[in-house]
Amino acid sequence: MTTLQNGHQKKPLDIIIVGGGLVGSLEALLLAKRGHRVRLYEYREDIRRTPHVRGRSINLSLSVRGRKALQSVGLEQHMIRDHGIPMVGRYIHKFDGSTYVIPYDARTNQCIYSVGRNYLNSLLLKESEKYGNVEKYFNHKLINADLQKGSLTFLKTQNKETVDVNADLIIGADGAYSAVRKAMMKQPLFDYSQKYIEHGYMELCIPPGEDGEFQMPSTYLHIWPRGNFMLIALPNQDRTWTVTLFMPFAMFNEINTDEKVLAFFGKYFADAIPLIGKKKLVEDFLGGSALPLVSVKCRPYNVKDKALLIGDAAHAVVPFYGQGMNSGFEDCTILDELFQKHNDDIAKILAEFSDTRWKDVFAISDLAMYNYIEMRDLVTRPSYLLRKSIDDFLFWLIPDLWVPLYNSVSFTNMPYSECVRNRQWQNKIFQIIIIFVGLWTFGGILYLSVR
Amino acid sequence: MTTLQNGHQKKPLDIIIVGGGLVGSLEALLLAKRGHRVRLYEYREDIRRTPHVRGRSINLSLSVRGRKALQSVGLEQHMIRDHGIPMVGRYIHKFDGSTYVIPYDARTNQCIYSVGRNYLNSLLLKESEKYGNVEKYFNHKLINADLQKGSLTFLKTQNKETVDVNADLIIGADGAYSAVRKAMMKQPLFDYSQKYIEHGYMELCIPPGEDGEFQMPSTYLHIWPRGNFMLIALPNQDRTWTVTLFMPFAMFNEINTDEKVLAFFGKYFADAIPLIGKKKLVEDFLGGSALPLVSVKCRPYNVKDKALLIGDAAHAVVPFYGQGMNSGFEDCTILDELFQKHNDDIAKILAEFSDTRWKDVFAISDLAMYNYIEMRDLVTRPSYLLRKSIDDFLFWLIPDLWVPLYNSVSFTNMPYSECVRNRQWQNKIFQIIIIFVGLWTFGGILYLSVR
Repeated sequence: MTTLQNGHQKKPLDIIIVGGGLVGSLEALLLAKRGHRVRLYEYREDIRRTPHVRGRSINLSLSVRGRKALQSVGLEQHMIRDHGIPMVGRYIHKFDGSTYVIPYDARTNQCIYSVGRNYLNSLLLKESEKYGNVEKYFNHKLINADLQKGSLTFLKTQNKETVDVNADLIIGADGAYSAVRKAMMKQPLFDYSQKYIEHGYMELCIPPGEDGEFQMPSTYLHIWPRGNFMLIALPNQDRTWTVTLFMPFAMFNEINTDEKVLAFFGKYFADAIPLIGKKKLVEDFLGGSALPLVSVKCRPYNVKDKALLIGDAAHAVVPFYGQGMNSGFEDCTILDELFQKHNDDIAKILAEFSDTRWKDVFAISDLAMYNYIEMRDLVTRPSYLLRKSIDDFLFWLIPDLWVPLYNSVSFTNMPYSECVRNRQWQNKIFQIIIIFVGLWTFGGILYLSVR
Repeated sequence: MTTLQNGHQKKPLDIIIVGGGLVGSLEALLLAKRGHRVRLYEYREDIRRTPHVRGRSINLSLSVRGRKALQSVGLEQHMIRDHGIPMVGRYIHKFDGSTYVIPYDARTNQCIYSVGRNYLNSLLLKESEKYGNVEKYFNHKLINADLQKGSLTFLKTQNKETVDVNADLIIGADGAYSAVRKAMMKQPLFDYSQKYIEHGYMELCIPPGEDGEFQMPSTYLHIWPRGNFMLIALPNQDRTWTVTLFMPFAMFNEINTDEKVLAFFGKYFADAIPLIGKKKLVEDFLGGSALPLVSVKCRPYNVKDKALLIGDAAHAVVPFYGQGMNSGFEDCTILDELFQKHNDDIAKILAEFSDTRWKDVFAISDLAMYNYIEMRDLVTRPSYLLRKSIDDFLFWLIPDLWVPLYNSVSFTNMPYSECVRNRQWQNKIFQIIIIFVGLWTFGGILYLSVR
């Protein structure tokens, strides 16, 4: 018997988390804080000992939802102050080489932060060492699961032994290709969809300049929007930039020689070539391969009171709203609130999470799909810039009433589905404004012509 | 070397079909006819030796697409003449006990046929005995698949031995819960969705009358539409009716005692109780359980030139358009045409099937979802009946131009996606007609009032 965080005398729960990535290791902290026994199983080696694995994004953008979750385990200020690079807007590189800035929040200067995946993941794992009730098992691959019974079998990837384990609750935080979710698919009435977009991505790198400093203004997310494809760059602590090219697979496949790489970049991203360096560009491009982007939706997230999916395992999204990690961290916040609300009654917690969370993660999933079009294409259009400036003006004028979509998603904790409803309501007002402006103009012309 | 159907001298292909259901056994015939070696593996026992398994529909409706495929293996006339019961329209049982008929095709009296699953499946399997190049393996469960290499491992369910087999081409015709598709999900860029509707179904039975004859007019599909749920009945050769109740799971769960069953049927399907018999109704209802209905979409259907999904494995649909079997049989027809067109070049055949077939099966999948609302609710509404009679009139007037949706789906071989486009075009004309009628009426009233 233990005195839990909420003051109640209760038997601690025995909880297994599958997946020691960002969401899994944060969830371990929150559950440990509540006094439960947590065992964390991770397929890969301890990330604190591994160099970067190509294929997982190097850096991520941290915004308000993610910050709130980090705050609840006391790590927000550390991440932001010491290990996050603020990005206050989009820095657009036009086709003709000219640039302009679109601030995220001209009114109060809120920003998102570029953070390193490895650093943040390591920090969360290290933090768990402060708790006596967290055990971590790396190099453990889930090979069998009976979720109804709460029993799992892992294969130790180093010596090929298998281990059978049981728990009161199994949390699947094992990412977009989740093994726990695969087991859940055997449940009756499990809705599931996975959709690959026709675009792939490839990461490249801009090194520091000769002075050891950033080669571009560091407080922005840089975008080279080119209609059907785009290049983006996020700053890293070591003064490098992680550059990501998003483009249809068919186009990647065609660019298969040194000359073609240079011709392609020369035509579309001429200003990026000297930053990356010709030799490195060709090497990295031809040495890598374009990787797929998948969007996953499913329902329900639980198997009775025995198993639950969170993070990418429950709702992998395309990366264009910068909300993958943030929405996963928000899952942890919501779960923590439900543990409090239902006094650790797993059946109630899991049922409420599953019944309510889907509409918000479905909403951010759809928004992320849409935002790809905005980032790679719309940001260059006058109609977009006009709407953006009117949105910003109204936000300045009536900040409590008129929060633009990007701001509500990135700088508030408003449920994602409400952000979308908000935008729909704003669109209607907008249409009315346009009709009035149209009538007023028409009336003016009429008046002038008959006068 | 063999002289194939198309006259070419070619090495026959070695083809494995997984699944000996309706679609698998038909496909075996078509491939055998073309001279290829076919091995058919089925998880269950030979259906010719098994009594009915509760959970698979007893009877199905056969319409033009299915008939065309049966014709190509010489079995259409036999099925229709001797073993199909024509259904010329919907026979609606209203809440108040009164009835009315909605013909499917008042113009030329085309009909769909109620056929028995077991009989048709047995017939197709028996037919394959006429070919020396079809081998059948029952009680073989697929437990492992390397689709890239075209190799499969089966478990013999009777003696637990495993068998490894290889083929030039693997065709997955193993139904909505396909094991071949499960293996295909490991391929990169495989889009997949499974969606369960909130309604389940339960099969009941109306026996023959004391005179040994049908207790209801036999040439109709009977429907008891009740808004959010419905009962339907299809006739069988033995003068019984297979009655299916479609209803939300939540409602099924509430009806859990003799009294509740009788009260529910007494309230909503009073005229069906004496037909089924009180005792049998209660026994069957409480002895059975509601089964789920799943809709599956995926893309692509092939793995290079090695594996292909057809039928429910590729596109399980909800049963409300009566097109599950028909669309699966149409897959076989299309494949046969592609074998002819591409002269047995598997790579080309599979690529074209995969690139073109999805838009039609996605269309019928959506139509089937929609038709549930039509069957259980819209058919009772005046607006539906008005539209239906205008549709029928225009079809009678200009049969080449105006084919109503149900008719194009059930009585033509027009691609499903074109049936949908057709309907959209008709809807536009309809709106224009309504506006004109509205203006004319308004003008008439105006004229009369100022006269």
